[in-house]
Amino acid sequence: MSSTYGQMIKLSIFGQSHGAAIGMTLDGVPAGLKVDFEELQAFLNRRAPGQNDFSTPRKEADAPEFLSGLLDGYTCGSPIAAIIKNTNTRSADYRNLMDCPRPGHADYTAQVKYGGYQDVSGGGHFSGRLTAPLCIAGGLCKQWLAAQGIQIGAHIAKIAGISDTPFSPVSPQLEQIGTDFPVLSKESGEIMRQMIQNAKADCDSVGGIVECAVTGLPAGLGEPMFGGMEGRIAQIIYGIPAVKGVEFGAGFGVAELRGSENNDPYIIEDGAVKTLTNHAGGILGGITSGMPLILRAAFKPTPSISKPQQSVSLEHMSREELIVKGRHDPCIVPRAVPVVEAAVAIAVYDAYLEWKARKS
Amino acid sequence: MSSTYGQMIKLSIFGQSHGAAIGMTLDGVPAGLKVDFEELQAFLNRRAPGQNDFSTPRKEADAPEFLSGLLDGYTCGSPIAAIIKNTNTRSADYRNLMDCPRPGHADYTAQVKYGGYQDVSGGGHFSGRLTAPLCIAGGLCKQWLAAQGIQIGAHIAKIAGISDTPFSPVSPQLEQIGTDFPVLSKESGEIMRQMIQNAKADCDSVGGIVECAVTGLPAGLGEPMFGGMEGRIAQIIYGIPAVKGVEFGAGFGVAELRGSENNDPYIIEDGAVKTLTNHAGGILGGITSGMPLILRAAFKPTPSISKPQQSVSLEHMSREELIVKGRHDPCIVPRAVPVVEAAVAIAVYDAYLEWKARKS
Amino acid sequence: MSSTYGQMIKLSIFGQSHGAAIGMTLDGVPAGLKVDFEELQAFLNRRAPGQNDFSTPRKEADAPEFLSGLLDGYTCGSPIAAIIKNTNTRSADYRNLMDCPRPGHADYTAQVKYGGYQDVSGGGHFSGRLTAPLCIAGGLCKQWLAAQGIQIGAHIAKIAGISDTPFSPVSPQLEQIGTDFPVLSKESGEIMRQMIQNAKADCDSVGGIVECAVTGLPAGLGEPMFGGMEGRIAQIIYGIPAVKGVEFGAGFGVAELRGSENNDPYIIEDGAVKTLTNHAGGILGGITSGMPLILRAAFKPTPSISKPQQSVSLEHMSREELIVKGRHDPCIVPRAVPVVEAAVAIAVYDAYLEWKARKS
Amino acid sequence: MSSTYGQMIKLSIFGQSHGAAIGMTLDGVPAGLKVDFEELQAFLNRRAPGQNDFSTPRKEADAPEFLSGLLDGYTCGSPIAAIIKNTNTRSADYRNLMDCPRPGHADYTAQVKYGGYQDVSGGGHFSGRLTAPLCIAGGLCKQWLAAQGIQIGAHIAKIAGISDTPFSPVSPQLEQIGTDFPVLSKESGEIMRQMIQNAKADCDSVGGIVECAVTGLPAGLGEPMFGGMEGRIAQIIYGIPAVKGVEFGAGFGVAELRGSENNDPYIIEDGAVKTLTNHAGGILGGITSGMPLILRAAFKPTPSISKPQQSVSLEHMSREELIVKGRHDPCIVPRAVPVVEAAVAIAVYDAYLEWKARKS
Repeated sequence: MSSTYGQMIKLSIFGQSHGAAIGMTLDGVPAGLKVDFEELQAFLNRRAPGQNDFSTPRKEADAPEFLSGLLDGYTCGSPIAAIIKNTNTRSADYRNLMDCPRPGHADYTAQVKYGGYQDVSGGGHFSGRLTAPLCIAGGLCKQWLAAQGIQIGAHIAKIAGISDTPFSPVSPQLEQIGTDFPVLSKESGEIMRQMIQNAKADCDSVGGIVECAVTGLPAGLGEPMFGGMEGRIAQIIYGIPAVKGVEFGAGFGVAELRGSENNDPYIIEDGAVKTLTNHAGGILGGITSGMPLILRAAFKPTPSISKPQQSVSLEHMSREELIVKGRHDPCIVPRAVPVVEAAVAIAVYDAYLEWKARKS
Repeated sequence: MSSTYGQMIKLSIFGQSHGAAIGMTLDGVPAGLKVDFEELQAFLNRRAPGQNDFSTPRKEADAPEFLSGLLDGYTCGSPIAAIIKNTNTRSADYRNLMDCPRPGHADYTAQVKYGGYQDVSGGGHFSGRLTAPLCIAGGLCKQWLAAQGIQIGAHIAKIAGISDTPFSPVSPQLEQIGTDFPVLSKESGEIMRQMIQNAKADCDSVGGIVECAVTGLPAGLGEPMFGGMEGRIAQIIYGIPAVKGVEFGAGFGVAELRGSENNDPYIIEDGAVKTLTNHAGGILGGITSGMPLILRAAFKPTPSISKPQQSVSLEHMSREELIVKGRHDPCIVPRAVPVVEAAVAIAVYDAYLEWKARKS
Repeated sequence: MSSTYGQMIKLSIFGQSHGAAIGMTLDGVPAGLKVDFEELQAFLNRRAPGQNDFSTPRKEADAPEFLSGLLDGYTCGSPIAAIIKNTNTRSADYRNLMDCPRPGHADYTAQVKYGGYQDVSGGGHFSGRLTAPLCIAGGLCKQWLAAQGIQIGAHIAKIAGISDTPFSPVSPQLEQIGTDFPVLSKESGEIMRQMIQNAKADCDSVGGIVECAVTGLPAGLGEPMFGGMEGRIAQIIYGIPAVKGVEFGAGFGVAELRGSENNDPYIIEDGAVKTLTNHAGGILGGITSGMPLILRAAFKPTPSISKPQQSVSLEHMSREELIVKGRHDPCIVPRAVPVVEAAVAIAVYDAYLEWKARKS
Repeated sequence: MSSTYGQMIKLSIFGQSHGAAIGMTLDGVPAGLKVDFEELQAFLNRRAPGQNDFSTPRKEADAPEFLSGLLDGYTCGSPIAAIIKNTNTRSADYRNLMDCPRPGHADYTAQVKYGGYQDVSGGGHFSGRLTAPLCIAGGLCKQWLAAQGIQIGAHIAKIAGISDTPFSPVSPQLEQIGTDFPVLSKESGEIMRQMIQNAKADCDSVGGIVECAVTGLPAGLGEPMFGGMEGRIAQIIYGIPAVKGVEFGAGFGVAELRGSENNDPYIIEDGAVKTLTNHAGGILGGITSGMPLILRAAFKPTPSISKPQQSVSLEHMSREELIVKGRHDPCIVPRAVPVVEAAVAIAVYDAYLEWKARKS
């Protein structure tokens, strides 16, 4: 199924980049949950385009229109549906992509899969624009988790090879994340911005890594094997276009560690069981340990670059040089930060409801 | 849900390490598919313990007993069920773990989640032993994919910081993988084995990375967003105990690349559309491109080490030193290689059936 | 999950009767399927209110607005989303129902379930109005099935105790169903209409039965046990408000029959295997036999009647007499006929795609 | 999917009538639930064959062997798996059915679906024997619901046209159901038994209806539309072989009633909201009202009768007379009574866990 996620809540995302509207339905949410619309809009604005000099100049409000599921600012128990109308589209930019697919984009795979019936404009259903409805759902879940004392925050861990200060695995510095540019180290942030500008000047793009932390989680969320927290989070994170890697805790670094280094020793702190370190990223056997949940997602460089690229004509089966037109971010990582938070919020809220069902 | 996976096929895994039996049911498989039992047993033997000097000496045949779903060597359309009886168990080794959880293991999270009712012996349902039924299901799917010209192979990419030769992303050397020790470079393999022996001598363990490739895949498998190949593969790979990272194609390396480097240029080769490079790992927009599908999974060092470790008594809420008894692999990565192949085979076969349903 | 249905296609229905809009998303539909919008609108009009003198005078166009999933009149592979805006609402009619629930309606159960947060206006998410988006999805599936030679038709089998001529189980008379009033016997239809008028005059309502037939089905659709055609059809039919019974073939009549009467003898006709009778309703072991699929659904009398009724005040826990205001059909059965067709079309199309995935 | 059911618990049933074993896995059950094995065996015995003079003389213990999920008589949180080994099989009886399908049975539809690869012996996966593992799962759920004060009971409502005293819809007489022959009226039961004997003497069979009631249910279980109690119960009931109709409360009788008759007036009784009558069968808008949940399921006459029947040779596409050999119940309804209880218990327990997840 293309666009449905969740065990207790069913998130269904729909829309094409240049269609009439994009949107989402979120089914299975309990009644009586408060929604702060201003906070939600502020969250959506963090993802919206046109926020700074290196993101795409296409400016759209990304103001969600709620069609159902809410009444007087509270969930009413029925499925929540929200849409964002598309207003500022330039479809002519994409006309040639049916024949000549953009390298690194889904143009070719969609062509094969849908046999020429796909909506190619703006990337269709594969567009990064589809992360806007993901952020509506995630922004709501984030609020409902916060009401339970569960906080989610993310920052840019790396762009173009430049690293930010990492989160402390046992006490992630959520409150120190920059609001203008979401990094912990202002200096690293400055260099990252310069790298993005350099890439832009070269008609090129750069990739990066987003690191996300969840604090305040009770121990016991998640199910063993295929219902583990890593798997359910990875599944939704991979639903974000451009993600090519997801890791938890020490992640790929575990291949350099010995068991005696990687194992997190148990301690008693303030009358509670904790671990001295947190290489596990707050997850053991797929189940939350009560320590902060830490993960990282790798985003490839924006495939749409204006540099000439080698492609082919599918009609003539011949070599073609492609110049991608249209407006594109030279780096999507800054805007991807709230999207990762949204995806994690949805997965965690889903696991939270499942946990409630089975605990005594 | 703990142990159910799949859209078109439903894999359900059950059992505890030291219970009566472990097993699996696989529902939704078409009728008339041939099963080669010898080949399946050979595949299971690659995962089985006691194969060499550094894997756990516990020797069990891992011979599956099929209860249903097969008739005269062919699938008969009804759910396939198979079990492996547990014969060689030493539960007394685990008695103290209810009170004093092993660092890096699921003892503590299971205790919180199940309130003391969990089966702690041998790790219960969280044991690596549960990968045996995963390999039954995966071994079958591997055969059915091979009948369609789709091959799956994996090797050890890294152990204890020592790297093997990587797969060629455009033409992975599946046939060059060692049968005794699954690496491409015999020299690297020798050093890895030495590193494992060193760790064992230190009563310690080491982690590593498995790289897996799928060749012969048609373009068009997978669905956009949450049904993408990366998400569905990651979800099942994270069902394997000890996995802390999953990446595709260039993976976390994309954070160092520019778009012009990461984008794979299209070419025409033998009358077919291919890409010159394969940073995408054979997946664009969640959908297979026809190029080899490449992924890597990071496995943490075996948490059960016989070195003294710091833990706590849950009853007395006091500090305790823990000596883990029992027999444990100093490195699970060699045995994890077929398990990754199995997980990928299940995910790909599931996507293959879904693809059949929607193509015209 | 409240409003999600399907194995291969995921239908998600949202909206409240008096909210901003009602709608549906339909995910998992293949690309390249043609949509005839005029035919769809004609189908929706059969369900729409205000069509005759005994249906509710509330007149709404029920004109779907497609937001995604279609391009130039064909499915494009991405999820289909469509909404119907609510224009003609009179919420004040429903104000008192939070305290004083209407007998036979979901007011009380919603109050308990949602703790006072539910949207009570017009029945909220429990309203019969939610069958409009079901008919959008079903109308589409009906067209796609028709392109495969599969026809679906339904008629009123009974209203207020008056029976129509039943379908011939081996050769249902789909083409003889009245277009003005969907019955096979014009005479029975006249009496039914009179019974409805009588009930209306008495400020009362009447119930009935809808019979539906599917012809042109290949043998082999459906899966055994919980994936059988009866179960998957019943699940979606029970999603229609007011349904209290679903039966297939001889249905509850089997309790009067002997095996020798109920068993359908096999015959060869035109070189194909058929059955002489069709007590099975075209389903054996949950799987289609190639004979017409026949089912009946019982609809209770509209619970909203203007006759005074006995209820309670939930606030004061005291007896109350209730006069239901608002406009309500004295019999919903005529408008339910296309809704049953829609539900069956969705279930059959879902099973059809699943069948394609597994057949060789 | 053939044999998987549930939203919060995943029940997977496997096995063929004459295969090595039949069984079930039940995933998603909370830890710490007590299991009374004697009570479970007594429940299974109610379904077992060979209990009286008109059920099939094939005697099998139906003693479940639990492979996982239980520890010291309590659920341990991991999936529960149980099998029943097949011991007393006579496959030679079924040899000719591949070519000459039994009327009323799934032989022909299985042949078309599985292309000759199906296991035809004893009906394979379509056999009534598969209700034994359903009863294991249902017997467990029944115990866990009873611990919450929720009782489930069923009786024979009709056999061969002879009706039992119906349940009182507001106060079903669960304690008056006969233990030897599950009816409320001993006299009706005697006539039913005679009708079965008559059918047996004629080498024929008879059908009937089972009525089931659930008491002690809290109001608020179930979800609107496709998650309603009717739909989820109907889906599992239709998983029982031979069921052709399912109805709730007044069921098909609603077609004879006016709204003023069918609507259940609200009353206050013992400080609680109840209804004077219960035509709704305890369900409004798909959600439990707190009144007893009442349903009926129609079972067709056993299709396997020893009377000569008309069939065809699939190989020669010619008319054949068929004499069904083997041992078969002339009426399965008495043995179906606990099976209906089991199915309802599973559906209700699943809904109960879902309800826990969303209530505040």
